[in-house]
Amino acid sequence: MLIALDAMGGDHAPEEPCKGAILACREKPHLSIALVGDSEKIKPLVEKAERNVRSRLSIVHTDEVINGSDSPSLSIRRKKNSSLVVGFEMVRSKEADGIVSSGNTGAIAAGAVLLLGRIPGIDRPGLGAVLPVLNRSTLLMDVGGTVRCKPINLLQFAQMGSIYMKLFQNVENPSVRLLSNGEEMTKGDDVISAARGLIEASCLNFQGYAEGKDIPNGISDVVICDGFTGNVIIKFGEGLGELLKSQFKEEYIHHTLPKIGLFFMWPAMKRVMGRFDWEKYGGSPVLGVNGSVVKVHGRSKANAIAHAITGAANFIERNGVDRIREEIARGVQNGND
Amino acid sequence: MLIALDAMGGDHAPEEPCKGAILACREKPHLSIALVGDSEKIKPLVEKAERNVRSRLSIVHTDEVINGSDSPSLSIRRKKNSSLVVGFEMVRSKEADGIVSSGNTGAIAAGAVLLLGRIPGIDRPGLGAVLPVLNRSTLLMDVGGTVRCKPINLLQFAQMGSIYMKLFQNVENPSVRLLSNGEEMTKGDDVISAARGLIEASCLNFQGYAEGKDIPNGISDVVICDGFTGNVIIKFGEGLGELLKSQFKEEYIHHTLPKIGLFFMWPAMKRVMGRFDWEKYGGSPVLGVNGSVVKVHGRSKANAIAHAITGAANFIERNGVDRIREEIARGVQNGND
Repeated sequence: MLIALDAMGGDHAPEEPCKGAILACREKPHLSIALVGDSEKIKPLVEKAERNVRSRLSIVHTDEVINGSDSPSLSIRRKKNSSLVVGFEMVRSKEADGIVSSGNTGAIAAGAVLLLGRIPGIDRPGLGAVLPVLNRSTLLMDVGGTVRCKPINLLQFAQMGSIYMKLFQNVENPSVRLLSNGEEMTKGDDVISAARGLIEASCLNFQGYAEGKDIPNGISDVVICDGFTGNVIIKFGEGLGELLKSQFKEEYIHHTLPKIGLFFMWPAMKRVMGRFDWEKYGGSPVLGVNGSVVKVHGRSKANAIAHAITGAANFIERNGVDRIREEIARGVQNGND
Repeated sequence: MLIALDAMGGDHAPEEPCKGAILACREKPHLSIALVGDSEKIKPLVEKAERNVRSRLSIVHTDEVINGSDSPSLSIRRKKNSSLVVGFEMVRSKEADGIVSSGNTGAIAAGAVLLLGRIPGIDRPGLGAVLPVLNRSTLLMDVGGTVRCKPINLLQFAQMGSIYMKLFQNVENPSVRLLSNGEEMTKGDDVISAARGLIEASCLNFQGYAEGKDIPNGISDVVICDGFTGNVIIKFGEGLGELLKSQFKEEYIHHTLPKIGLFFMWPAMKRVMGRFDWEKYGGSPVLGVNGSVVKVHGRSKANAIAHAITGAANFIERNGVDRIREEIARGVQNGND
């Protein structure tokens, strides 16, 4: 199995993607990775890897990069020799089995649609994020692929998210909720209200609206929202975590008691933090396109990138794209959308 | 000064609103409070208060309640004898100087518009929430008053939020940002992009887009978004806080080391948590209407309600509504909106 890795995407490229590729190859002995990017920069980063890893790492040279500030669809159309576009082309031509990138989220979603194409019946792809919450994992979808949605998009996110949780988190009949500004039927806007009707009429295990506080409380296996809302939420959570960390750090620096306390609490803190380490959850899958595409957070370091690569490999091994294609086709036949 | 308190609103009514009224009267010796609600339920809750507090508490009997599931504007029009509508009527007739409620957010926003009326030049009122963030307070606005917004609404939230932070948090030339799904100009949807243009053309201290993670990091004094997004964000933050608390509690129960650690860390934890105690921040002001209206979280207990009442009293003492009216009139004259 060959996975194309956008070695130039993200804040710590190409160093961290290259380290991540080495870690992933160590973990999965049958995995090969094509590092797509500036070969002069990549070569010194991988040449010291042990032989049985190095032999599974190839370099595909490109001399353009899509930046965070580039317009998603324009950059995909114009930067033909960028690491991201070349990686997608490798998946389209079946040279690679999937692609992983920590680059521009919009460009990854746009590239997935423009270069790989949508699965028949799917209007817009969805970018999901698996969040570790109370007593379960919740797939929040969309988190930035489709900024604003039509009701049909939200229904299809619910369908794809449900399939993803069934197949890849082994959840029997995943529960689905739609994010709104309250639990009551009167909440939401016109789009959310229409989407509620569509999802209720489907055969999904739909349980109504979820509020913001319900996500961390693990109210359901899948929570659906538009990409704007999902993006703001996961970034807000990230910012809150950093704020808390920095506040406690300041306490340790200026006071002695918390230092002693930390000594005793460290194992408990490690256990709790380990439970909520979002980096372990294999990146964010782009669902609804003809290929295995996984987006990693732009600030990711090697470990998170390695988890995303192995997550993509699992998705490919279990024929993830085919399973979604079949289920969506069945749903369309049954008149579920 | 007389403030009308909706004694029947919120999850713990009428007990907690009544306790909150007693606390607020103890704190502000010139404050009187009209408890609006079921007099039979309210009487036993306040009769034991010390004489100089009891003498400043009056009861206005009503026999209807607007619930969380009621449609906002319908309930304001139909439930004429509800505690919320009667409270608003007292402000409209100048019998009371302001109103505080922990009831249905949408109904409070609708009642403020329908019964008190908008300040001339204001299209939609905004519900703000003052959040304790890194090294400052940030006013997030709107958090549920106007679910979806036009660009002009977002501009006016920016104007009113800026005035609020200037007058009530003593911030010189408050910085304003617009919430989006990324920092780059290309982010956001059509509404956000048009609002950006309007705010840039105003004389506000506008600094561009804020991402979700920037809110806890204290990037600016005012962060503007639509009411759907703001509502989801503050509730998500609330849920995350509860999740962390419950996780650490479990650790203390099942292990000894964290118990010892907690003993040493308790002062530091209290300091950090005290800094982020959202209940201290005086409730959420409804800005842009002809009256002082403060919404308190539905789950609030007496302390939070007391803080909201004293916050409303401060707003009234400083002629908050007149100051916003003047500044908006000046802005309209200068062609800022």
